[in-house]
Amino acid sequence: MRRRDIRAVILAGGRGTRFWPLGRTARPKQFLHITGRDPMLLETVRRVLPLVPARRITLVADAGQTRRARKLLPRLPKGSFLVEPEARNTAPALLLATARVWLENTEAVVVVLPADHIIRDTAKFLRRLESGVEAAARENAIVTFGIPPAYPATGYGYVRHDRGAGRMISGTVFYPARGFKEKPGPAQAAEYVASGEHAWNSGMFVWRAGVFAEKLERFAPELAPAWTAIVAALRSGSTAKLRSAFRLAPARSIDYALMEKAEGVVMADGDFGWSDVGAWSTLAGIWPRDGAGNTFRGDTLALDARDCFVWNPGRLTALVGVHGLIVVDAGDALLICDAAHDQKVKDVVEALKKMKKYKRYI
Amino acid sequence: MRRRDIRAVILAGGRGTRFWPLGRTARPKQFLHITGRDPMLLETVRRVLPLVPARRITLVADAGQTRRARKLLPRLPKGSFLVEPEARNTAPALLLATARVWLENTEAVVVVLPADHIIRDTAKFLRRLESGVEAAARENAIVTFGIPPAYPATGYGYVRHDRGAGRMISGTVFYPARGFKEKPGPAQAAEYVASGEHAWNSGMFVWRAGVFAEKLERFAPELAPAWTAIVAALRSGSTAKLRSAFRLAPARSIDYALMEKAEGVVMADGDFGWSDVGAWSTLAGIWPRDGAGNTFRGDTLALDARDCFVWNPGRLTALVGVHGLIVVDAGDALLICDAAHDQKVKDVVEALKKMKKYKRYI
Repeated sequence: MRRRDIRAVILAGGRGTRFWPLGRTARPKQFLHITGRDPMLLETVRRVLPLVPARRITLVADAGQTRRARKLLPRLPKGSFLVEPEARNTAPALLLATARVWLENTEAVVVVLPADHIIRDTAKFLRRLESGVEAAARENAIVTFGIPPAYPATGYGYVRHDRGAGRMISGTVFYPARGFKEKPGPAQAAEYVASGEHAWNSGMFVWRAGVFAEKLERFAPELAPAWTAIVAALRSGSTAKLRSAFRLAPARSIDYALMEKAEGVVMADGDFGWSDVGAWSTLAGIWPRDGAGNTFRGDTLALDARDCFVWNPGRLTALVGVHGLIVVDAGDALLICDAAHDQKVKDVVEALKKMKKYKRYI
Repeated sequence: MRRRDIRAVILAGGRGTRFWPLGRTARPKQFLHITGRDPMLLETVRRVLPLVPARRITLVADAGQTRRARKLLPRLPKGSFLVEPEARNTAPALLLATARVWLENTEAVVVVLPADHIIRDTAKFLRRLESGVEAAARENAIVTFGIPPAYPATGYGYVRHDRGAGRMISGTVFYPARGFKEKPGPAQAAEYVASGEHAWNSGMFVWRAGVFAEKLERFAPELAPAWTAIVAALRSGSTAKLRSAFRLAPARSIDYALMEKAEGVVMADGDFGWSDVGAWSTLAGIWPRDGAGNTFRGDTLALDARDCFVWNPGRLTALVGVHGLIVVDAGDALLICDAAHDQKVKDVVEALKKMKKYKRYI
């Protein structure tokens, strides 16, 4: 295999409210020490290093998140941090990052990775990614990874794909993608999972810079003006021009803006122990549990407590006769949540936003 | 009615663990600001003032609790605080306090009041107490108040009494007591309540000092040496002698040491809205609730939360999908307890005692 020019683009920004009160709007989960390992952003960078050297890694985020990311990754060169003029979802961010690569080398292969996922089998992840790079390099394809659905999730988008038409490339089977589906309702999700031909959209992509530009032009012409303007702005080096160019791109996800329209998208199974750590109860499942199903971070005394997750370092927590609770103490704010209702944590943040006196907690 | 020499003895000491983590062993409930009014000790003193002037009120407690009580009641004269050489339950404390009164006036009537109760109807309480003073003054009787049992409690002692033999004295009916019963099991408690002749032992008593001395001699001769030694020590003014004398008294409750053996005990109904505020859920019942049955002290955001009691001043608490919880934040320690299990809070303290690293929390 000849030496490829591989670039990793890590989507390091974004807002997060599901891990409130530990996570705050400006401190989303990829920056938190919640998995028992390093923050997910740091792990994401570290994970890809065997395939992509540090100088070819770009972290895209707005100015605030970039400051935070630089603090977390002080050894990455300054050029690794690409500041979005503003946070506008993934399509503008990926136009910007890919345009920068394209200006250097249209044949370079861009690997897009969200920064807020856990991957348990790094070796397999790297093998899959390497195959994806080969597939993207050799064919005019956009590669994505679909997570084999563990249950009929309504919280993820799905990638429909044709399992009868798989082709082996560099050790991995790639299936033609037949469409990107928005988050379904429960019945739809059940159908998807039963079909065997729908996988969770992981938000990981691989494309050649030149192919990305071509796909934009053919399948998402409404993005073309933004692309052209961003390329021109990058060439000029003008921050002001970049800011206006960036605003030409619709504030949408790349899935919606490009993927669901493009032809020539292929999908490989993301069978490498992926989790997007979507809520506190997911996290509870990552930590080891005691005999009663409890996970405690911080001194905790449990009397007749089961299946509880307590995050309260530095203080004592006593649980008496309770079960299935998520307890998170962030110093200034305390969450006590039924584990089955942890999706509503984001509603807490929404409710706080409406109350002026609680603004400091969001 | 002629002017009586009435003395109030307030049992201000004692240990408390039921209101952990706000209450600590050395800071029992009578010192806490938990009822929405002043601490119960302060309320107890204030409540009895229309009947007993401040200079005739004695607070009995060990040295540590006395320091705490003096801080709470800075206007009481220094002589109001009677320091027990050590905390040894109520019998030694009441021998000491009564002996001090007895040395001044054997005819003085002693009103014994625990400091950690709530009484909703103060006017009625004072009428009952005044009748009790009359009964104690006129007859060679020990008077007690029995709380009409609201349910078959297993957490209280009971006073069996003969409702067919009541006698009206000064506007209140007094029944001959037929025995003091220890805390019963559930079946026994149900029998007691069904009988109609058992009331909860409130721990409030009225006796003439001389009558108390006589009853001791006749019905609890094992206490006589302690009494004699305490009287001698008080006469001598020697702290060392008092310390040894105090140790002669068995470390028991007065109920067990004297009441259950003595003849000539009468009981009146304590029908004045009494509560001993025995646990967090009792307290929750005292505070006003919102439409969902919740009581919050401190900023609290509730999403789908019912019948919760949150005590977390100074920080934000968010409740999501939980019900029937007691949440108490004491700064260094947090309690989360099913309201139906709040009797186990004292087990938390017991468990903490066994762990050296948690000693600071008890």
